Amino acid sequence: MIRFDLSIDLDYTVLTPSDFVFVIQPANTPHQRVTWERLSIEPELEHDEQVVSSPGNRHLRLRADPGRLRLSYDAIVDVVHHFELPSDVPENPIADLPAEVLKYVYPSRYCQSDRLVNVAMSEFANMAPGYERVEAIRQWVQERVKFEVGSSHAGTSALETYESCTGVCRDFAHLMITMCRALNIPARLATGVDYGADPALGPTDFHCYVEAYLGDRWYIFDPSGISPRMGLLRIGTGRDASDVAFATIFGSVQWTMPKIKVEAQGDELNGIVMPFKHDYAVSTDSAFASPDEAILLLQGQEGAIKDTSMPSMGRAA
Amino acid sequence: MIRFDLSIDLDYTVLTPSDFVFVIQPANTPHQRVTWERLSIEPELEHDEQVVSSPGNRHLRLRADPGRLRLSYDAIVDVVHHFELPSDVPENPIADLPAEVLKYVYPSRYCQSDRLVNVAMSEFANMAPGYERVEAIRQWVQERVKFEVGSSHAGTSALETYESCTGVCRDFAHLMITMCRALNIPARLATGVDYGADPALGPTDFHCYVEAYLGDRWYIFDPSGISPRMGLLRIGTGRDASDVAFATIFGSVQWTMPKIKVEAQGDELNGIVMPFKHDYAVSTDSAFASPDEAILLLQGQEGAIKDTSMPSMGRAA
Amino acid sequence: MIRFDLSIDLDYTVLTPSDFVFVIQPANTPHQRVTWERLSIEPELEHDEQVVSSPGNRHLRLRADPGRLRLSYDAIVDVVHHFELPSDVPENPIADLPAEVLKYVYPSRYCQSDRLVNVAMSEFANMAPGYERVEAIRQWVQERVKFEVGSSHAGTSALETYESCTGVCRDFAHLMITMCRALNIPARLATGVDYGADPALGPTDFHCYVEAYLGDRWYIFDPSGISPRMGLLRIGTGRDASDVAFATIFGSVQWTMPKIKVEAQGDELNGIVMPFKHDYAVSTDSAFASPDEAILLLQGQEGAIKDTSMPSMGRAA
Amino acid sequence: MIRFDLSIDLDYTVLTPSDFVFVIQPANTPHQRVTWERLSIEPELEHDEQVVSSPGNRHLRLRADPGRLRLSYDAIVDVVHHFELPSDVPENPIADLPAEVLKYVYPSRYCQSDRLVNVAMSEFANMAPGYERVEAIRQWVQERVKFEVGSSHAGTSALETYESCTGVCRDFAHLMITMCRALNIPARLATGVDYGADPALGPTDFHCYVEAYLGDRWYIFDPSGISPRMGLLRIGTGRDASDVAFATIFGSVQWTMPKIKVEAQGDELNGIVMPFKHDYAVSTDSAFASPDEAILLLQGQEGAIKDTSMPSMGRAA
Repeated sequence: MIRFDLSIDLDYTVLTPSDFVFVIQPANTPHQRVTWERLSIEPELEHDEQVVSSPGNRHLRLRADPGRLRLSYDAIVDVVHHFELPSDVPENPIADLPAEVLKYVYPSRYCQSDRLVNVAMSEFANMAPGYERVEAIRQWVQERVKFEVGSSHAGTSALETYESCTGVCRDFAHLMITMCRALNIPARLATGVDYGADPALGPTDFHCYVEAYLGDRWYIFDPSGISPRMGLLRIGTGRDASDVAFATIFGSVQWTMPKIKVEAQGDELNGIVMPFKHDYAVSTDSAFASPDEAILLLQGQEGAIKDTSMPSMGRAA
Repeated sequence: MIRFDLSIDLDYTVLTPSDFVFVIQPANTPHQRVTWERLSIEPELEHDEQVVSSPGNRHLRLRADPGRLRLSYDAIVDVVHHFELPSDVPENPIADLPAEVLKYVYPSRYCQSDRLVNVAMSEFANMAPGYERVEAIRQWVQERVKFEVGSSHAGTSALETYESCTGVCRDFAHLMITMCRALNIPARLATGVDYGADPALGPTDFHCYVEAYLGDRWYIFDPSGISPRMGLLRIGTGRDASDVAFATIFGSVQWTMPKIKVEAQGDELNGIVMPFKHDYAVSTDSAFASPDEAILLLQGQEGAIKDTSMPSMGRAA
Repeated sequence: MIRFDLSIDLDYTVLTPSDFVFVIQPANTPHQRVTWERLSIEPELEHDEQVVSSPGNRHLRLRADPGRLRLSYDAIVDVVHHFELPSDVPENPIADLPAEVLKYVYPSRYCQSDRLVNVAMSEFANMAPGYERVEAIRQWVQERVKFEVGSSHAGTSALETYESCTGVCRDFAHLMITMCRALNIPARLATGVDYGADPALGPTDFHCYVEAYLGDRWYIFDPSGISPRMGLLRIGTGRDASDVAFATIFGSVQWTMPKIKVEAQGDELNGIVMPFKHDYAVSTDSAFASPDEAILLLQGQEGAIKDTSMPSMGRAA
Repeated sequence: MIRFDLSIDLDYTVLTPSDFVFVIQPANTPHQRVTWERLSIEPELEHDEQVVSSPGNRHLRLRADPGRLRLSYDAIVDVVHHFELPSDVPENPIADLPAEVLKYVYPSRYCQSDRLVNVAMSEFANMAPGYERVEAIRQWVQERVKFEVGSSHAGTSALETYESCTGVCRDFAHLMITMCRALNIPARLATGVDYGADPALGPTDFHCYVEAYLGDRWYIFDPSGISPRMGLLRIGTGRDASDVAFATIFGSVQWTMPKIKVEAQGDELNGIVMPFKHDYAVSTDSAFASPDEAILLLQGQEGAIKDTSMPSMGRAA
């Protein structure tokens, strides 16, 4: 298990009465328990949290009048990882995919996978299906695209990133998702914060990465290569960025950069480890885990990690 | 209430082992009861039906080996319409939209509403919000786009239809959805069959239309103007055509035009009427109706229609 | 005749050895005489001027080593306008267009007129062909697009401006050209400086506008509405901005805003007038004027203006 | 020298009075002499040939009334090739490109080279500049794109071919041109007929290929790999297909497939050879050859070929 301390401070100047939809609170799932949290809003405003069933995203909604608006959110989050040997994680034949997962094979606003089928086929059709092929896609994206702040905008889609070869984490993720779907591998966008990022990239920020449905669960990939996967808290998931913006604002608003802190707490005696880079397949969403399973997971966390016992493997991603 | 007899015959020549996902069976909802149905598949194949929770689409899935594949589906479907005077149907402020509905405001693969915000604003921002504004969008699309078989393809999106001004029912629907979302009106694609279509358009075929979330339910619009709205059975709904293809096929397959029949049964003594054109707002999905409400609806169908009693109104759509 | 004093100062910091292609010197044509000019380059560098035959653009080319690079260009330019009553200026049937002009009917990088044929037809096909239809296109563009610095970039094409409804002078010009070509009206991009611009738009800057081939010459239109047409010096022309960038730089360079001054000199005794807004059709390029004709034009300038004698007309553009 | 017999038969049913612009007659240049030709048009119609100066394309223009329209064109064409060892053909620094050639470095309608700069850089920036790099681009296009009749349409651009990996000769050419320009190598589209094509591709048809400006002339490349380069007659050249359609039709017209024959005549005694595949760099346009040079070329053709003497080289393209 890993325990995270997370704090997020947002600061807006609202110019006209505006509706906000935030998705900034970590999902509360069997593998990821929000064990404590506190939200404060200045000025005090009526607000409303709705969890949207299928991906489990937490929508925080409020309406603000002109003036300053500040949100402070703090949480302690315990994450239990599921590890597998990459060679043990298969791709699924279409026939075996749960119906709820099928939509992650279809194209979406920023991931027009129907347009890059031949590219995906020529690059990856000759590889054996499975986790390692998806990891090869991830590496292909990371090598192809150059991280460059300001090189893309809210309307940039995977097609444009495929052409321009530049982007930010969101664009890396969209391109990887697109290539996966073009090969009939379900893939979705996950949001979080960039734990462990190179300080040269600036202060801690929100982050986007990818989850691909392999075997019986969603495995984590970071095509930008910015964070160790064990350091990634999941805030929300969706078909692409149109589903899980951190803040969707209906109105006229000025904003400043969010202030974010995330720290992992180590406590080896209690089975709490620090994130590190390794080559295992890692998942925190079995998609259909029951709440009971979750409790077992959290109770048995030490064993869970011990069992996989991580034998020596090669280069870390 | 309207009672429909529906039959659909599909005929494929499968060239390689292929997975099929069909969404051709009418949704079974409080307002639309599938009272009898029969599905036969030749050759007999293991198949599987999964109802995907949020929009309630029925996924029929099977895997076929090379050779001929035929599906015959017959059903009797009872539809209870909810009518409103257009002037009584409001648009919702963002703050009042259910979280489940919010995703229908966001852009999707074929409905890039973020790209046409200024167009939508310049055309419709000056109109009073409400059903009549959405109907004005519908008319704008119908007048702007010319129905032309073969003028678009599977990859055609609303942006291209906005430029080319030609398309088929799917393209009309995508453009209308895009304009609605650009104004923060939730809109989704609905599939069905083109009851009442001009025979000059060819034999009965599958059809696409639009539902917009207004007041507390989804109202029906047909931007192609092909069918009377009361004649529209809902098969599936989704954010756009990437979600609700009639058949998604993974493999190599030859196909022929589907053979479809749909008939409405009149039986006035039992409160069963025939579809006709009128100007009321019409809905068959209150989104959150409980099963109990459904039974009430079907029991009380005569009254439901009598109550609205349809006073004389103007030009029909 | 109008006499202009023009000065342009450009200031670069060259980071790597770089090739520059400037098109900043006014074209020297029968209707537009550069009567005096001076170019200084710091440091002194070998440079080369080539006039490309067909549109007559003056390419100033040089290669600069790392360090500062400054260009100062001053010129006195005499422009003789050709005026016509709008109702006397016809569109040409395709069969009557000179072959050299045909290419301005075809689509180009930023003016994909093949993609907006149906839009152009639905907006303008019902109008009588002629100057006034082209002026209607100009007004349609000016009303549709909002001038907004920073709303577009070097890759923005007319399709995107048609969607976004925002842009700068270049985008207005590309959209107007696209609509003209979609109706088989030859149209090209002209570059100059924004004489007479509202000071609220910032200091004097380079400018883009449109010339359409009507009757036997190229008539001037400013779809952004920024400058009176008589105040527009022509620097270069091309199919779109890919042909006539002010500076095309191959290398790595930092730059500052150009410093530009343009003044019109009035000297009524000598037949030199000041630019003003009016509703005549105005041209400074008969396309096939001989040098001899040019001398006649400059000698007979007073008469040329007197002849048209500008009776009262309506709203100015 | 190679001598070609060319015949082209076109057959239209004109539905409304229509203007035609044909570019089907081979260019008449120093390296390519049309030594005899005959054009017949049924019904007899006034027509007009205009040679557009810069690329030397022959525009045949006519206006036809409703009814049948048939064109028969026959010609004998002598082509003198210029051969070079690939290693002797350099790319030019920008500073050394003639101004007339510069426009072939800029993006155009179907060759949006500004959008693929990073792709071109990552694929080819590490190779030494020169003919062999351009040949590597050609091979990359041929390997990447699959020839598939019907996979593209008149609006398809290089960006779409880069995504879809399918196309016809025009699409291969557009993608190769785009990649060249993205590296600042001037490249243009050339049209001709597909001499030597595999009969499996169907009857002889029009063809598109690429010329790149290297050293002091335009060298021929066929990215589709369909024809031996020595078998390519040049009909027209342009920035892309928007400049050199075989027939641009303004009106409503039905057409049938063109009937084309092309044969090379061998007469070794007179120095007339047959086209064959080899690895030399081949050009038929020195861009600035004077008519006198042309006469010398045609007189000295044997020597021209003997001089290069074609030592053994590797795999032919």
